[in-house]
Amino acid sequence: MRIVRYSRGGVCHYGELVDDGAGIARCEGDPFTGLFPTGHLDGVAEVAILPPLERPRIFGFAYNYASHVDETDREVPEVPVVFMKPSTAVIGPDDAIVYPADGELIHFEGELVVVIGKEARHVKAADAHEYILGYTCGNDVSDRVIQRRESAFGALLIGKGQDTFAPLGPAIVTELDPSRLSLTTRVNGTVMQSASTADLLLTVPDLVSYLSRYLTLLPGDAIMTGTPSGVGPIRPGDEVEVEIEGIGVLRNTVVAERG
Amino acid sequence: MRIVRYSRGGVCHYGELVDDGAGIARCEGDPFTGLFPTGHLDGVAEVAILPPLERPRIFGFAYNYASHVDETDREVPEVPVVFMKPSTAVIGPDDAIVYPADGELIHFEGELVVVIGKEARHVKAADAHEYILGYTCGNDVSDRVIQRRESAFGALLIGKGQDTFAPLGPAIVTELDPSRLSLTTRVNGTVMQSASTADLLLTVPDLVSYLSRYLTLLPGDAIMTGTPSGVGPIRPGDEVEVEIEGIGVLRNTVVAERG
Repeated sequence: MRIVRYSRGGVCHYGELVDDGAGIARCEGDPFTGLFPTGHLDGVAEVAILPPLERPRIFGFAYNYASHVDETDREVPEVPVVFMKPSTAVIGPDDAIVYPADGELIHFEGELVVVIGKEARHVKAADAHEYILGYTCGNDVSDRVIQRRESAFGALLIGKGQDTFAPLGPAIVTELDPSRLSLTTRVNGTVMQSASTADLLLTVPDLVSYLSRYLTLLPGDAIMTGTPSGVGPIRPGDEVEVEIEGIGVLRNTVVAERG
Repeated sequence: MRIVRYSRGGVCHYGELVDDGAGIARCEGDPFTGLFPTGHLDGVAEVAILPPLERPRIFGFAYNYASHVDETDREVPEVPVVFMKPSTAVIGPDDAIVYPADGELIHFEGELVVVIGKEARHVKAADAHEYILGYTCGNDVSDRVIQRRESAFGALLIGKGQDTFAPLGPAIVTELDPSRLSLTTRVNGTVMQSASTADLLLTVPDLVSYLSRYLTLLPGDAIMTGTPSGVGPIRPGDEVEVEIEGIGVLRNTVVAERG
């Protein structure tokens, strides 16, 4: 099932992509409490596709592909390295990444994103799949200058958390095996990242288990699983695409902040 | 105005503390969209006081009192150091801090907490007061062992974000000048922290202005302003009190996690 959140005539709905992605079977409810088909079909061209989650909590993992750890000249961490991106950073596939007026070095990071479906606490890795609703694509947009300055003091927020720095979408895909998906990031059509989720150091079940050992995961939480090697800069005018096998393409343009 | 969130007969309400704190004038609505007195009075002894915010986003500042920077043997950071605490860490004044089964060194940190009242973006420090609803007490409970390990890799979540690690309350106090309030933290009645918010390195208006330069603050967001010197360990059985002049006392016991 490919679940999208969308707006038509100013009203938000969840729905299921049908007809090879050309139509949406409109639903009442939401994927966390229950999706109920209304029988109404919307054409994808007639609606605005929204971020698949409304103001989610976002947990982001760093240094979770050996290839990316290598390119940052760091060691593989002795503990999982996690941060949060504020909900206000979220944009959908039809929105633009805003390049901050005083931004100096803004990077893309293509990532597989886990969407939690049920409240989860003290979940074993072997049981993690029961708490996962599905998967989507994400771009962990990062301001490297601020990130480095903050991280030198042991914390991280503004470097990862500015408005529009968390593109998510286009759909939440359920019944997908996340263990061996190809992930490709392109900037203006040029492939910058090409990897497999088989190379994640901590697997999807590991990440759910780790977080839930310490805190309660909630329906609608998003877990960004980390980025592989090949990260690099984006500039106003660029188009960034994160494509994950079985999910689709998350495409966003970059625009300059109005001064 | 002293606003509390409370539960009576399984129903949650906001209300205004009256009669020197013995009664609550029950309201409909909430402090962000509008509080409307119902005319009903509840006795404080008849209700459960809840955290003043329901699942807030929490932004926490580190190293924001020179006295605390000194005791950590660090330099004053060149950028504001900010992290998020997940909403699931929040507990109220009637709840217990749960000492994790594998916790080794858990610290209290008494702090002044700012509650945002209106959406805020690109707000000047001089205008920050217009976006602040009020203030409450907070305890930025921290797992120092995990915090150090995470921070060594430039991020911070589990060290600050475990369930029950964000006691808030007891009330949100509006029309309070935050610039010179005495803050006292006691453990089992012994004063451990005693400071004035006049010693904040970045003032309350600075913090609102800084965050809103990069991201949209939302009604109900909480900003933990940092802790002064005197932080120290808590253990199961302890009682921690954070008292701030003009706000009141946030009192929580510490209990061991059931294995």
